[in-house]
Amino acid sequence: MSISNKISDSSVRRISIYLRILERMEKNGDETVSSEELSDHSGTTAAQVRKDLSSFGSFGKRGLGYGVSELALCIRKIIGVDRSWRVALVGVGRIGSALVDWGGFLDRGYDIVAILDVDPSKIGQKWSGLTVCDMDDFEDVVREQGVELIILAVPVEAVSDVVDRIADVGIRGILNFAPTTLRVPEGITVKDVNMVMELEALSFTLNQQKLKE
Amino acid sequence: MSISNKISDSSVRRISIYLRILERMEKNGDETVSSEELSDHSGTTAAQVRKDLSSFGSFGKRGLGYGVSELALCIRKIIGVDRSWRVALVGVGRIGSALVDWGGFLDRGYDIVAILDVDPSKIGQKWSGLTVCDMDDFEDVVREQGVELIILAVPVEAVSDVVDRIADVGIRGILNFAPTTLRVPEGITVKDVNMVMELEALSFTLNQQKLKE
Repeated sequence: MSISNKISDSSVRRISIYLRILERMEKNGDETVSSEELSDHSGTTAAQVRKDLSSFGSFGKRGLGYGVSELALCIRKIIGVDRSWRVALVGVGRIGSALVDWGGFLDRGYDIVAILDVDPSKIGQKWSGLTVCDMDDFEDVVREQGVELIILAVPVEAVSDVVDRIADVGIRGILNFAPTTLRVPEGITVKDVNMVMELEALSFTLNQQKLKE
Repeated sequence: MSISNKISDSSVRRISIYLRILERMEKNGDETVSSEELSDHSGTTAAQVRKDLSSFGSFGKRGLGYGVSELALCIRKIIGVDRSWRVALVGVGRIGSALVDWGGFLDRGYDIVAILDVDPSKIGQKWSGLTVCDMDDFEDVVREQGVELIILAVPVEAVSDVVDRIADVGIRGILNFAPTTLRVPEGITVKDVNMVMELEALSFTLNQQKLKE
């Protein structure tokens, strides 16, 4: 599989969306899809779809479109959701516990195999069938459970200590819910999720519009 | 207040982070803060902090730094969190109901004043003190409750209908949890939150690294 080195974040995001469209089509029993159909359902252009997909190799047949299952399988391999990932959740405060209860990660193969916290009142409790472990044992838990990705949901004050330990234990991917920018060594990738900050960006934009009116 | 027209998304994100730092400092009783301190805690440079803040007017005093409370107040006004926002949640599936239970929006002044769904088994139920309304009554609910922002947590199939109705009723800000790109008329701002797609971007990156090794 020849993959271009320079795939942008927005391209990866679109590819995730294409996969969702393809999976709905698989359920419907559709066998082929055109770049026009993919663009219609993903808010982009057919040319952009062709460009995104061509960067992963060429599977479209001119005039026939893409094979739905073939393309879905290929995208799953590229994104890495053709297999499951072992994930640890660090921090079961309000956001962390909502994430455990939600369970939407497992549907895509992200399997939360460990939950950790520093709070003695939480350690030892059961959450969705997992026992909350002591952060003191982080390195042992990561090794025993073969953890590959971390969901980080600790208070801002605790972030830098935890990030150092994540780096030292050799984990290279963090999904960060703490409202701060993580400083990580090279080779570790961070993706931020912060719903409240997205809302703030929204209200900022609406505020600006009002000032101009 | 003179505000530059071109404030980037990443600048707004940093400003949200500065506000969180300032609020922690207010709690600690700190009175002034330097651009160096703000940059230390937000993963950027002091020069970037000064640049971000100067786009909103000049409040730093050379050698003295910024007044913590003065700067926090100013940022709150700019972002629009010096007041509360009336928000409706559309869709109480798994992600929507987790958001209602979470409650983290209200802390920042985003007040969920209405919840709507199309599912007869959900309509009329109580969630966090609110009765789930019928999507048939969307326009009436928006007007009665003075809704300004929508949190959209409906299945992809339902998105385009709902977006049309949001636009028609005059709402201009959407926080989108549906894993798709919304097509909205000009004047409507959308911010996307998709935790699973962020995880997919992470595993994509790790996959690429492995292929290179």
